Amino acid sequence: MTAIDSERATEGRRAFADVMTFPAPEAPGPTDAALLDFVFAEVWQRPGLSRRDRRFVTLPCVAAADAEAPLRDHVYAALNSGDVTITEMRETVLHFAVYSGWPKASRFNMTVDEQWERIQSERGQAVPEPDPLLPLVTPSDPEDRLLTGEQAFRDVNCVPYVPTRDNPYSGAGILNFVFGEMWLRPGLGMKERRLVTVACVAFQDAPYPILSHVYAALKSRDVSFDEMDELALHFAAYYGCAKATTLNDEIGRQKERVLDEWRTEASQ
Amino acid sequence: MTAIDSERATEGRRAFADVMTFPAPEAPGPTDAALLDFVFAEVWQRPGLSRRDRRFVTLPCVAAADAEAPLRDHVYAALNSGDVTITEMRETVLHFAVYSGWPKASRFNMTVDEQWERIQSERGQAVPEPDPLLPLVTPSDPEDRLLTGEQAFRDVNCVPYVPTRDNPYSGAGILNFVFGEMWLRPGLGMKERRLVTVACVAFQDAPYPILSHVYAALKSRDVSFDEMDELALHFAAYYGCAKATTLNDEIGRQKERVLDEWRTEASQ
Amino acid sequence: MTAIDSERATEGRRAFADVMTFPAPEAPGPTDAALLDFVFAEVWQRPGLSRRDRRFVTLPCVAAADAEAPLRDHVYAALNSGDVTITEMRETVLHFAVYSGWPKASRFNMTVDEQWERIQSERGQAVPEPDPLLPLVTPSDPEDRLLTGEQAFRDVNCVPYVPTRDNPYSGAGILNFVFGEMWLRPGLGMKERRLVTVACVAFQDAPYPILSHVYAALKSRDVSFDEMDELALHFAAYYGCAKATTLNDEIGRQKERVLDEWRTEASQ
Repeated sequence: MTAIDSERATEGRRAFADVMTFPAPEAPGPTDAALLDFVFAEVWQRPGLSRRDRRFVTLPCVAAADAEAPLRDHVYAALNSGDVTITEMRETVLHFAVYSGWPKASRFNMTVDEQWERIQSERGQAVPEPDPLLPLVTPSDPEDRLLTGEQAFRDVNCVPYVPTRDNPYSGAGILNFVFGEMWLRPGLGMKERRLVTVACVAFQDAPYPILSHVYAALKSRDVSFDEMDELALHFAAYYGCAKATTLNDEIGRQKERVLDEWRTEASQ
Repeated sequence: MTAIDSERATEGRRAFADVMTFPAPEAPGPTDAALLDFVFAEVWQRPGLSRRDRRFVTLPCVAAADAEAPLRDHVYAALNSGDVTITEMRETVLHFAVYSGWPKASRFNMTVDEQWERIQSERGQAVPEPDPLLPLVTPSDPEDRLLTGEQAFRDVNCVPYVPTRDNPYSGAGILNFVFGEMWLRPGLGMKERRLVTVACVAFQDAPYPILSHVYAALKSRDVSFDEMDELALHFAAYYGCAKATTLNDEIGRQKERVLDEWRTEASQ
Repeated sequence: MTAIDSERATEGRRAFADVMTFPAPEAPGPTDAALLDFVFAEVWQRPGLSRRDRRFVTLPCVAAADAEAPLRDHVYAALNSGDVTITEMRETVLHFAVYSGWPKASRFNMTVDEQWERIQSERGQAVPEPDPLLPLVTPSDPEDRLLTGEQAFRDVNCVPYVPTRDNPYSGAGILNFVFGEMWLRPGLGMKERRLVTVACVAFQDAPYPILSHVYAALKSRDVSFDEMDELALHFAAYYGCAKATTLNDEIGRQKERVLDEWRTEASQ
């Protein structure tokens, strides 16, 4: 092993420990070596997206990948580092459930409970009472919820239109619950919801949602162009370069579109 | 907690117990609460698709999601409620294997065995002998199987053409086995196969199969327009709104297409 | 840009052109840069697995990821380089269909047709006639097919037992078609089928199939220990480090198990 190789290996182990809050495993094979050398020492260290922001890309990816050990380790690291609060983590699970389905979210949810208890136990603390669900911040009256959902749909998606109420998916699902309730819950910031959403639509590889959520994240200025580029690279590390290519291509197109719109708006 | 909120929480637990045949878990976090309040008290209770029909959308979704606990619980609930017979369940596993790949189906198959034994044990009954595989109802002769497969391909897909035999995927696979054998097996009705198939192509998000199977389910009148709309909402709950958007958009297009064809046929 | 960075960028573009048989795109963002620098200049160039072998890991990954452009480009590159014959490619589609579901395979199959025609057209050649499907090499009689499937199940999986016939999934599916027909088709070698299968079970992340197919690939000596390690790294590049961690952990366990068995066998 050359001096450079040895230095890279040391740097990889240091980077892993910094992100994960526990020591890197011994890494005899090429996959572990690449994980330390490329994913931890390179991707996680890049300046374009903060370590905290990268958590909100990593968590949905490891939850979707059904990778039990990485899910457990990244939930632990996000909470143990203090980068993500337990309230934010629980909202991330709910947001993930909506974009990736309840079944996968159920494991994520159980893992959060386990790791939260583990952290309290390691610190000799009692597990705090969870935040009470009620009262909800969104209206109960069905008509009011739909009106609220329609406004949130426009605001979040940066579009002037709303889908029809009179369709179970877009009415009872999208307007009534996803935008009429879920996106409006306090406890997770808009930027963080954007990061989670783009990661989710990217691994779900649903063409129109990728387009619309990349667009809205950029257009709203919640995620900058450089941050979005970093999101694509981070996603490539956690969900592979094949899906990341699709995401990256769409990011290129949406950057052009948003720039065009901003130019038009500025000239009016 | 207001009276209305308390009523909704009670309703969610009641709905869960009704669908799942066992009591709802205590629900401290936002994900569990939303599961009870939205998925069980709202989606499952909607009139457009029967509880039994919803099983055939839910089962492939939880099997595909690699969600161990939800898969176990939904297999148990479908059998324990009497909504789905063991013969139907086992055919659902085979149909799922073909449309989602054998690896994921292997866990589904093991889970069915386990839960079926558990139910018999809870009832103090012996596990009945399984149905024998042989004789198959489809022809053994390769040429006859292909002819049978070609006819079934036309009938199931509501199209006048067949794919080429001289291609391993479409010949050895699609004509010889998928349509020459699997779709023709007794033990699972055509409507149920439609529901399972549309759910599978929706999470696989393969554009042409979504188009063709939504079209055929509607065109054949095996699934009504309203039922298909409900299927999209139910799918959104179990596989997330990202993929459901793609499905729902395609449903919109295929309803138009089928209506046009029915109008043309009526005027001839 | 330092001299080292410039050298790495040139090397990345050279490596891309070598693998893909066409020039690398301009790479303005971090994801494209990492693709050239890490995936092409590093992973594809590693000695432990041949370029041809890496095709059989890449193809199922890009097909599963629904990544339209990467799928098209990798099908083209595999055929255009001469690394993979059209017969092998078509068998890969069928094998992929079985292990990942027919819906995703339908796009793969269409892409193979398109790219094969494109290559012939670029070369000014007519598209050759496809291989005829019939006669099949496997028996037609249902009982004979099951016996053949049972033997192939034992041989491929390196186990002494077979699953029950009297279950639609394991009887009509696994024994009758997957092992009684598909694995026995000529036109794709056993090592290549192992590579495709391990990639498929890894992105499907079905725990027992990962275990059993990694074990059988190693135990049969169709894939060496070092090749399997490289497969995990290549898979990490194309399907992300989250799922690759699960695969890699299982590889570690199955290497131990196979070594133990070989030691026991040697001492008898």
